[in-house]
Amino acid sequence: MAIIMKSKEAAEQVYATIRSQVEQLKQQGHRPHLATLLVEGDPASAYYARTKQKIAEKLGISFHLHTFDRHVREAELLHLIDSLNEASHVHGIMLELPLPRHLSASVIKQSIAPYKDIDGITPGNKLATVTGEAGLYPATPQACIELLKHYGHTLAGKNVTLVGIGQTVGLPLFHMLQRENATVTACHAGTRDIAEHLSHADIAFVAVGCPDVITSDMVHPGLILVDAGINETLEGKIVGDAAVDVGEKIHAISPVPGGVGTLTTAILYKNLLKAIELQQYSREVVYS
Amino acid sequence: MAIIMKSKEAAEQVYATIRSQVEQLKQQGHRPHLATLLVEGDPASAYYARTKQKIAEKLGISFHLHTFDRHVREAELLHLIDSLNEASHVHGIMLELPLPRHLSASVIKQSIAPYKDIDGITPGNKLATVTGEAGLYPATPQACIELLKHYGHTLAGKNVTLVGIGQTVGLPLFHMLQRENATVTACHAGTRDIAEHLSHADIAFVAVGCPDVITSDMVHPGLILVDAGINETLEGKIVGDAAVDVGEKIHAISPVPGGVGTLTTAILYKNLLKAIELQQYSREVVYS
Repeated sequence: MAIIMKSKEAAEQVYATIRSQVEQLKQQGHRPHLATLLVEGDPASAYYARTKQKIAEKLGISFHLHTFDRHVREAELLHLIDSLNEASHVHGIMLELPLPRHLSASVIKQSIAPYKDIDGITPGNKLATVTGEAGLYPATPQACIELLKHYGHTLAGKNVTLVGIGQTVGLPLFHMLQRENATVTACHAGTRDIAEHLSHADIAFVAVGCPDVITSDMVHPGLILVDAGINETLEGKIVGDAAVDVGEKIHAISPVPGGVGTLTTAILYKNLLKAIELQQYSREVVYS
Repeated sequence: MAIIMKSKEAAEQVYATIRSQVEQLKQQGHRPHLATLLVEGDPASAYYARTKQKIAEKLGISFHLHTFDRHVREAELLHLIDSLNEASHVHGIMLELPLPRHLSASVIKQSIAPYKDIDGITPGNKLATVTGEAGLYPATPQACIELLKHYGHTLAGKNVTLVGIGQTVGLPLFHMLQRENATVTACHAGTRDIAEHLSHADIAFVAVGCPDVITSDMVHPGLILVDAGINETLEGKIVGDAAVDVGEKIHAISPVPGGVGTLTTAILYKNLLKAIELQQYSREVVYS
């Protein structure tokens, strides 16, 4: 039976640091503020937004949930984002995804000021994630790496198999793993034999967004697996991308729920504080 | 003895297409124009710039070599680039690299208009190479893939080992290989055992910039190797990143010189014609 790499303790450590930083900022007369934009219609998005709100309250962070009807016009969203970009009391802007189809996600993402973009979805932060320059990197891939490190694992020199190379998680994770000096094999739907690549791996990450992408016949006893998938089954159960019995066959696995997702929320607030730092330091230097 | 994947024929095919496109443009009253900036001091850069000039003459493309003293001020370069960006008769701007140390390469690269940046060195084109959006992609990684295809090899579903993951060649090549549906393992200086990863590979690319990165004891008889390295030995000989005897042990190898480098120049002119297309289509749509 694998070691279950729960993220509760790692998340609490991140929150403890955030609390003391929030305290310091308050003594300087500042209160961190996160604006979250939610277009109604996706129950999961609404749930995540409310979860963030509860955590903000516990951290002493000011939180405003801007909720829009599912038929909202793009111009209305862009208008709000413009004013949030300008407002000096707003330090972070979080756009809950996915958006309804009538809205252009790419136009809306681009409209967020890069130094308030706490989930790294703007072009400037996407490129910074690739090159390693200063910026705000997406939270989920950061959480994948931090969870592993919390359990004492190192990445330098390791053979890592990454399953799923999407723009949101897999691709930025690939670049972060490069900077950790891991040797990464990037697998995807076109890969001939994912099991073959898992057989060479010390560590694997899976971020496809489908249940049972990794099954127990594909893994070996020494493997450490971080599962970034969050899927809802027909019975309404939340499961990852690895089948439930994979944990019986490998060295360590992150659970779903209670793994990457829980730590991702903590990292978003860590990014909010990094955003404040970038805003204080210099907007011009970082995003020229 | 390996099949030697010379690029002369592939380059000639590219040039034949370019010649007919140049002819068409001339009939419409346009003449493609490439401006190349060379800061004196690096003999290899000067050689490459002159090579491009000779080829431009053969293709009927207008070419202006802007040469600067090695002590040139950054402002002077930026001023010229500004005016080339504005000049409607200039379709491509090529900056010969490396630059002397007193100049900020990143500031100078950023100053080039993205739709005239025929070697894909601006932030907008770098990000386009990552995401697969419309743009001008760097020429050397394109040449690596085109050379392989010219010899009838396909990439979809293949196991590819990439040795060297630098910003100029390896990293953009990684992203282009993803879009070809190859399963790529990215090796670098921190990789535990490059030979192990080569042993699983159908195809390998090497782009490190050091001789003898790949030696004959690291390869297997079925391997196809594309060598993107161009190195000068102490004796003044041009060699690739693979040792000279690697070709005796594998299925196919690209020679240096006469391989990737020769095709890269052809791809640069292909990019110049793509740049003209982008400029005619819409600057705003592509680079918003």
